[in-house]
Amino acid sequence: MTPAVHPDIAPLAFLLGTWAGDGTGVYPTIEPFAYREEIVISHVGKPFLAYRQRTWHATTGEPLHAEAGYYRAPTATAAELVIAQPSGIVEVDTGPIDGTAVSLRSQLVGRTPSAKQVDSVERNLVVDGDTLRYDLYMGAVGQPHQIHLKAILRRVEG
Amino acid sequence: MTPAVHPDIAPLAFLLGTWAGDGTGVYPTIEPFAYREEIVISHVGKPFLAYRQRTWHATTGEPLHAEAGYYRAPTATAAELVIAQPSGIVEVDTGPIDGTAVSLRSQLVGRTPSAKQVDSVERNLVVDGDTLRYDLYMGAVGQPHQIHLKAILRRVEG
Repeated sequence: MTPAVHPDIAPLAFLLGTWAGDGTGVYPTIEPFAYREEIVISHVGKPFLAYRQRTWHATTGEPLHAEAGYYRAPTATAAELVIAQPSGIVEVDTGPIDGTAVSLRSQLVGRTPSAKQVDSVERNLVVDGDTLRYDLYMGAVGQPHQIHLKAILRRVEG
Repeated sequence: MTPAVHPDIAPLAFLLGTWAGDGTGVYPTIEPFAYREEIVISHVGKPFLAYRQRTWHATTGEPLHAEAGYYRAPTATAAELVIAQPSGIVEVDTGPIDGTAVSLRSQLVGRTPSAKQVDSVERNLVVDGDTLRYDLYMGAVGQPHQIHLKAILRRVEG
């Protein structure tokens, strides 16, 4: 039985579901690429949402990226997001909730000794009915903060 | 089809599987408690292991904690672990791999504005056949680094 959404996280309940879609990535240090993505955002009745995603190369189907973390909403208009990435990166992001949009900016980016340098991450998500659009800006490996990813997904479950 | 384990992560392949078992928690600021736990450690053929766990109160079955992250092994005897927790905490941990044991100590603990203070985390895991034992030490909320969790799990899959 699915428990009710905890009232503290209700301002972010618009993110709940399994989302599938397509995105594109660019950065000065790499070739542009296209990817398929699945995002799962779920809850267990506690005051957080669990977030995980995976991406695959659009043509070869090869696994590309993954990340996992948790959303919190300390107030009705303030979101927090903690993320771990297999590239050896962790993020602590915060930012405003505005209706069915949330804009997050890294307050802290941590890395393991073997990870590449990442200095800043910005994640902007907008949900419109069963459509989720996001873009992700990043400052990394000596490059200034700039667009890295853009994707459109459809809610396929939940 | 399950891909082969990437050679770079082979030193940690002993962790792979779905593990289920029981643990106990203590800390000066809380009542001792018992929990059930499931840990899933998986891979997709890339040079990392995906890690996620959930715990439930031993008697009420109520969801307690969760965390998710990724293991890396930059050398055959060095492990890295990045973790996100719904309490608003991220960890970057490093430490030695010794046979089928791995000892991790936080190099960085990050937190969202609404999270409790956590200063240090130490995670020691030992696998013996299909048994996984771990203990977790923590320095948090003004308390010195000390034992917090102890658990024994059995590999139930993979």
